[in-house]
Amino acid sequence: MIAVDAPRLLGRIRELGAVGRDDENRLTRLAASDADKQGRDLLVGWLRQAGLDVAIDRVGNIFGIWQSPENAGQAPLLIGSHIDTVIDAGIYDGCYGVLAGLEVIETLKASGFSPSRPIAVAAFTNEEGVRYTPDMMGSLVHAGGIGVGTVLAAVGTDGSVLGQELARIGYAGDEEPGFLRPHAYLELHIEQGPVLEREGVPIGAVENLQGISWQRVTIDGVANHAGTTPMSMRSDAGHAAARVITFLRDRAKGSNAPTVATVGSIRFEPNAINVIPSRAVFTIDLRDPDERRLRVEEAALASYLGQLAAAENVTVSVERLARFEPVLFDIRIVERIEAAAKKRGLGARRMTSGAGHDAQMMARIAPAAMIFVPSAGGISHNPREHTEDAELVAGANILLDVVTQLAG
Amino acid sequence: MIAVDAPRLLGRIRELGAVGRDDENRLTRLAASDADKQGRDLLVGWLRQAGLDVAIDRVGNIFGIWQSPENAGQAPLLIGSHIDTVIDAGIYDGCYGVLAGLEVIETLKASGFSPSRPIAVAAFTNEEGVRYTPDMMGSLVHAGGIGVGTVLAAVGTDGSVLGQELARIGYAGDEEPGFLRPHAYLELHIEQGPVLEREGVPIGAVENLQGISWQRVTIDGVANHAGTTPMSMRSDAGHAAARVITFLRDRAKGSNAPTVATVGSIRFEPNAINVIPSRAVFTIDLRDPDERRLRVEEAALASYLGQLAAAENVTVSVERLARFEPVLFDIRIVERIEAAAKKRGLGARRMTSGAGHDAQMMARIAPAAMIFVPSAGGISHNPREHTEDAELVAGANILLDVVTQLAG
Repeated sequence: MIAVDAPRLLGRIRELGAVGRDDENRLTRLAASDADKQGRDLLVGWLRQAGLDVAIDRVGNIFGIWQSPENAGQAPLLIGSHIDTVIDAGIYDGCYGVLAGLEVIETLKASGFSPSRPIAVAAFTNEEGVRYTPDMMGSLVHAGGIGVGTVLAAVGTDGSVLGQELARIGYAGDEEPGFLRPHAYLELHIEQGPVLEREGVPIGAVENLQGISWQRVTIDGVANHAGTTPMSMRSDAGHAAARVITFLRDRAKGSNAPTVATVGSIRFEPNAINVIPSRAVFTIDLRDPDERRLRVEEAALASYLGQLAAAENVTVSVERLARFEPVLFDIRIVERIEAAAKKRGLGARRMTSGAGHDAQMMARIAPAAMIFVPSAGGISHNPREHTEDAELVAGANILLDVVTQLAG
Repeated sequence: MIAVDAPRLLGRIRELGAVGRDDENRLTRLAASDADKQGRDLLVGWLRQAGLDVAIDRVGNIFGIWQSPENAGQAPLLIGSHIDTVIDAGIYDGCYGVLAGLEVIETLKASGFSPSRPIAVAAFTNEEGVRYTPDMMGSLVHAGGIGVGTVLAAVGTDGSVLGQELARIGYAGDEEPGFLRPHAYLELHIEQGPVLEREGVPIGAVENLQGISWQRVTIDGVANHAGTTPMSMRSDAGHAAARVITFLRDRAKGSNAPTVATVGSIRFEPNAINVIPSRAVFTIDLRDPDERRLRVEEAALASYLGQLAAAENVTVSVERLARFEPVLFDIRIVERIEAAAKKRGLGARRMTSGAGHDAQMMARIAPAAMIFVPSAGGISHNPREHTEDAELVAGANILLDVVTQLAG
């Protein structure tokens, strides 16, 4: 059984993770920044060293393509992820998937493997969405979900324009986005959650990606003196907001479903110690891998808000901020991942991705699936993001096995 | 039965209420500001017109004293309140009590009444505490609760020093604070709460003032991804805070006691839609007129926070921000207020003051009580603060009757 070159893979993860450090050693490579250019240059150098054809499209997506005269007419098998980061990031999110893709191709080349179709590795632009909106931008453009002109005109949090920045750093390529139509898409990623670590399972066979419902709720009551207003005469927007938070928690925790509900941000007005809040504004993040169940949860929330308005003498308004349907990955690829893990004597579990990934965009145009490896403490988007070397290597070998099958 | 001069009283309330308006007609007379000087000058002019001796103490408290050679040796009966305001204030809070005190004295003088002791009206400095801390400052100094040197050195929200500002506006007086030791103290005030209006009762005989317990609670959990962290593995500081809010509400509402509990301000960290809050910081305002019961409520809260920390896997720390014991007013004066209302055919109810007033400081050094009149909608500290003219006049006549008895 062939295996990836562990020192080469781990060394590259660390080398790329050293690019974009500030004076305090914090890692930040925002899309199309100078640090991103350095990271891209390093990656492209490795792609060329590996003898791959390098192609850059107009939105800056980078492709390293291994093809031969014999298979050049076939749709390629694509392995991808991203190398942009959040602010003060860890070194694994995204980069692991791209570098493992390269590693798999190099390993297969060196082994004398003769693929039936091209195998390519992609680094998609601006997956994190920190500097420019929307996130998962490069893969979304590739999948035809948004026009390239629109995103090139995107204005960043620093006032920059993406198209100008890509040109400045030398990554405004010539290829039309979507030029590479994959036969299938694979993405290897750290879990960014605690499940694999908690259960002691090294491989996640990701079968779907949660649907997301983001809402902003505004509750209006009446500001009144905290000392002079009897409890029975209050119209307390803050208290009503607290009821919603406990309702969501009790409902999600009491169910057997994988629904998760989070109130992550809140604001009271006037926000004074001795004034009953006249207004509470808070966000609700509801996720479920099943669209039908996500709708049931949204309806239950709406119904509760209606009852609350009457019971607490407040008015409630809801603004929808974002809504994504769940993504179903390709069951045949998921089964191949499980089988590959079994063959290597590694435990695997089917799981849902709670975070968004480029794979969800690519699933629109090709059979796709993801492989997860454990994240220590479930921590991500943070310098403490960590996965053990052996776990990283194990994940890359599963990717190797699945790629071998799909391109065999 | 004699009665106050209603047009004179109402006219002065409106005239004083016109002083300190900005371009948008918002009323703001912060302590020792130029607007406060204008208000003080107007008041002092009226005191002199009424033939009263005007005295100013070192903290700027203004006294208008009606005394005769016959009663000058007796401890005076003092009527007081304040004429400083909050930002964007109504015209009644404080001013009504001071101007009604003056009105009562003028009415008694004109009626040929010969008091057995001097009668004085006081306007205490910085009751609102908006510009300088602490609030109820002038009466606190008068009652010996804080040194005059300390408060004159107080630095305001605008960087000003109170002592310098009082000198600048001409109200750094010569009298030592506390020079006037009252026989008894009366304060007439708008309720600033909804009870009298709701019950259709024109006169409140205020028998006590709530004890106040202010605490700031900090709950620490663990920030995690809202999508990838199962409900069972969360340590959600925001949810724990919501539990405290609903606990306080359910406990206060389910009890027959007059306890009130308010969470008026809150903050989550990192306060992002898709991140489980690692920290929630919020304030708790607990009030009860009975010290024993207030302690029971504080203990119940502390016990709940302990349980919550264990159940929700969070840490809880509590900081005490302020603690005032309840104030008991003089029952004999309260009974006189009730009797006076009855005699004029006005309904009265005993009640608790939920807000702080100068009377609570004066109760430390003399028998004291307060008279309340209704506040429309319970609204105060707001331009919509309103009491009907007839209600204002009725309250002043009750003050007149009680003063007549106490100085008869």
